[in-house]
Amino acid sequence: MKAYTEMNKQELETELEALKLTYDEYQKMDLHLDMSRGKPCREQLDLSMGMMDALNSTVDLSCEDGTDCRNYGVIDGIEEAKVLIGDMMENNPDNIIIYGNSSLNVMYDTVSRAMTHGILGNTPWCKLDKVKFLCPSPGYDRHFSITEYFGIEMIPVPMNPDGPDMDMVEDLVSKDDAIKGIWCVPKYSNPQGYSYSQEVVYRFARLKPAAPDFRIFWDNAYGIHHLYDHDQAYIPEILAECKKAGNPDLVYKFASTSKITFPGSGIASLATSPNNMEDILKQLSHQTIGHDKVNQLRHVRFFGDISGMVDHMKKHADVIRPKFEAVLNIFEQNLGGLNIGEWTKPMGGYFISFESMDGCANEIVHRAKKAGVKMTEAGATWPYHKDPKDSNIRVAPTYPPIDDLKIAAELFTVCVRMVSLEKLLETAE
Amino acid sequence: MKAYTEMNKQELETELEALKLTYDEYQKMDLHLDMSRGKPCREQLDLSMGMMDALNSTVDLSCEDGTDCRNYGVIDGIEEAKVLIGDMMENNPDNIIIYGNSSLNVMYDTVSRAMTHGILGNTPWCKLDKVKFLCPSPGYDRHFSITEYFGIEMIPVPMNPDGPDMDMVEDLVSKDDAIKGIWCVPKYSNPQGYSYSQEVVYRFARLKPAAPDFRIFWDNAYGIHHLYDHDQAYIPEILAECKKAGNPDLVYKFASTSKITFPGSGIASLATSPNNMEDILKQLSHQTIGHDKVNQLRHVRFFGDISGMVDHMKKHADVIRPKFEAVLNIFEQNLGGLNIGEWTKPMGGYFISFESMDGCANEIVHRAKKAGVKMTEAGATWPYHKDPKDSNIRVAPTYPPIDDLKIAAELFTVCVRMVSLEKLLETAE
Repeated sequence: MKAYTEMNKQELETELEALKLTYDEYQKMDLHLDMSRGKPCREQLDLSMGMMDALNSTVDLSCEDGTDCRNYGVIDGIEEAKVLIGDMMENNPDNIIIYGNSSLNVMYDTVSRAMTHGILGNTPWCKLDKVKFLCPSPGYDRHFSITEYFGIEMIPVPMNPDGPDMDMVEDLVSKDDAIKGIWCVPKYSNPQGYSYSQEVVYRFARLKPAAPDFRIFWDNAYGIHHLYDHDQAYIPEILAECKKAGNPDLVYKFASTSKITFPGSGIASLATSPNNMEDILKQLSHQTIGHDKVNQLRHVRFFGDISGMVDHMKKHADVIRPKFEAVLNIFEQNLGGLNIGEWTKPMGGYFISFESMDGCANEIVHRAKKAGVKMTEAGATWPYHKDPKDSNIRVAPTYPPIDDLKIAAELFTVCVRMVSLEKLLETAE
Repeated sequence: MKAYTEMNKQELETELEALKLTYDEYQKMDLHLDMSRGKPCREQLDLSMGMMDALNSTVDLSCEDGTDCRNYGVIDGIEEAKVLIGDMMENNPDNIIIYGNSSLNVMYDTVSRAMTHGILGNTPWCKLDKVKFLCPSPGYDRHFSITEYFGIEMIPVPMNPDGPDMDMVEDLVSKDDAIKGIWCVPKYSNPQGYSYSQEVVYRFARLKPAAPDFRIFWDNAYGIHHLYDHDQAYIPEILAECKKAGNPDLVYKFASTSKITFPGSGIASLATSPNNMEDILKQLSHQTIGHDKVNQLRHVRFFGDISGMVDHMKKHADVIRPKFEAVLNIFEQNLGGLNIGEWTKPMGGYFISFESMDGCANEIVHRAKKAGVKMTEAGATWPYHKDPKDSNIRVAPTYPPIDDLKIAAELFTVCVRMVSLEKLLETAE
């Protein structure tokens, strides 16, 4: 088909009329579909049902070192869980703290602790006039929600296919000691599915921030969440790189099993330097006596080791790969060559990022919703929900059954085309 | 035996010599016993092993309302868990938020949130020059640890057998708007095992604090943790009393199943007014997507309802009642009539509180430790670890096997007697 941008007014109008009829058909279908959140689907959850058999009343709930997982204690997590999660995160178990069920909660608490008590003896952020964070954008809405909630000023940084604009990051952090952190999803980023290049990781490790309490919030949410057996993203391990670069304390690295076993009933973790660990554990001892060791043991017994976890992730990939491919095929089929949008083709993670023509994203999402398909709110991927070009839409293909997903993706492309046509008609002659 | 306070110098010396020989015998035994923490023992933990069978791979992990517990969401907890915990706490399920595994964590987060964001629109505490808490003392060391960590000034309030000195509480909170809270363990208090009288609860509900953001931190840790079938403590329900008194927002009430199922793998909860709930849930939505619903479901399926939980608690009582009685018998036998100490006789909870002669507690604990028996550090039951009379020692009888416990209790009384004799000899003629 001819690119919309090449069409004259009459062609645009004809095309729009035809699409309106299609859209009306969708509206009559009374759809209730959801492509808004990065949630695993039922088939994915079923993959982990075996974990419910990993422990039962006849099983000894003791660790290898004899610790009774049923009782109080072990604030940093049981050793065998640290080994498993260490392998998952590519970190030494000694650099790991195992938490409860939510890495978001660990990130929130990390910011909250910095607010009330500061980092490694530095002034608590709540005592400072201004605290700022760099936010590679589009990015993860729940990251931005934490920093916004704490009144931290968020500065968007362009996100490229190889990672954040490092010239800008280096420049800003070296000049302004009010900049205390940056949110990163280094692998299969939310929402683009981009992975940082080796050079970007190296430059992160070599940052020279003006603030001694600047930290990289490295949310490795999709570290082993590949879609393909081959063509997997590899990125250098950030803790090791920071240590080599003489910046050992620069990074907090987060991960969880939320999208490996059960979201909400997994285990979360933080990997960081010994100095940071000591700082954090001192605080943590006031907050809790320990996290859920029985659930840590349950995970260990279910997976055995990292090899078991990798095999498990292949099963996840087998479930969701067809969904990604279905959406991408529909996008290509219905939008390819029209010159009204671009989208990413991820090799892992949970999202596809769609870039519409400027000023169209909000209306596209609205149009889809009116026909019964819920998308992530437009703007959500930007700090303060302000997408300066109103162009980014996060597409989450994992949750709906594939037949529903195909309908939702088809409808989405109809909405993209309609809204783009209307936009073009505003200035067409 | 003659009261030590009636003995002359020579009698005291003779008694001390004899006890030194006994103490030497204990030292030779190379003991490693622990009466320091309120931890359930192995037999108690075994009572909940059936919970490990409540869920397995063949069981549907859906709630009654169809919610799939395996996936994200439901920030305030699943409905059936709210019903069960509501019955446990004597609160309407609608007034309850179910959290993760630790009520201590909920209390910490509640203070932390007040620090960074304030309560119901009031100034965040971190922006105030001075924040103070009332601390009925002796009290729970981990409560005091939270407020100390946040730099909150702690004011000890005498703790009587019927609750805190309410004249003092009423006077202080009505005059000083820097006083923002009070730590309470209203039933089977830590460490005395005291329960607040009806009048004390009524007076709490009718407090007229100068600070609009004053809150009662009502840690109902031992609400159903009775030692006896009869002779159970009953106290009025504080949320209901506050509502009746026109003070609906005055209280945060905390509880957990840590000492019902598995410490560290239970579920924690908070009950409070609709206004406070709204305030808290707004914050919580930035911190997490939800707590561990699978574990909530596991608890519900295991207990069925509150009746199942009450039956379960009777089994706990059967395990630990003989331990309490063994310690109390040894105290009575070895210290009765000597006039060198007093101790409480709890009907529930996890502790016995021992009051030595002034200036002896620290040395008694030290002496016991030297012979291989670990007690809670003297002073721990007071804010800043400063027991003004150096007289309170918390005794935790639940964890050691009963034979070990008897040895530890015997040794403890030897230490009490030795240290008291030495103290009396300082001024004997």
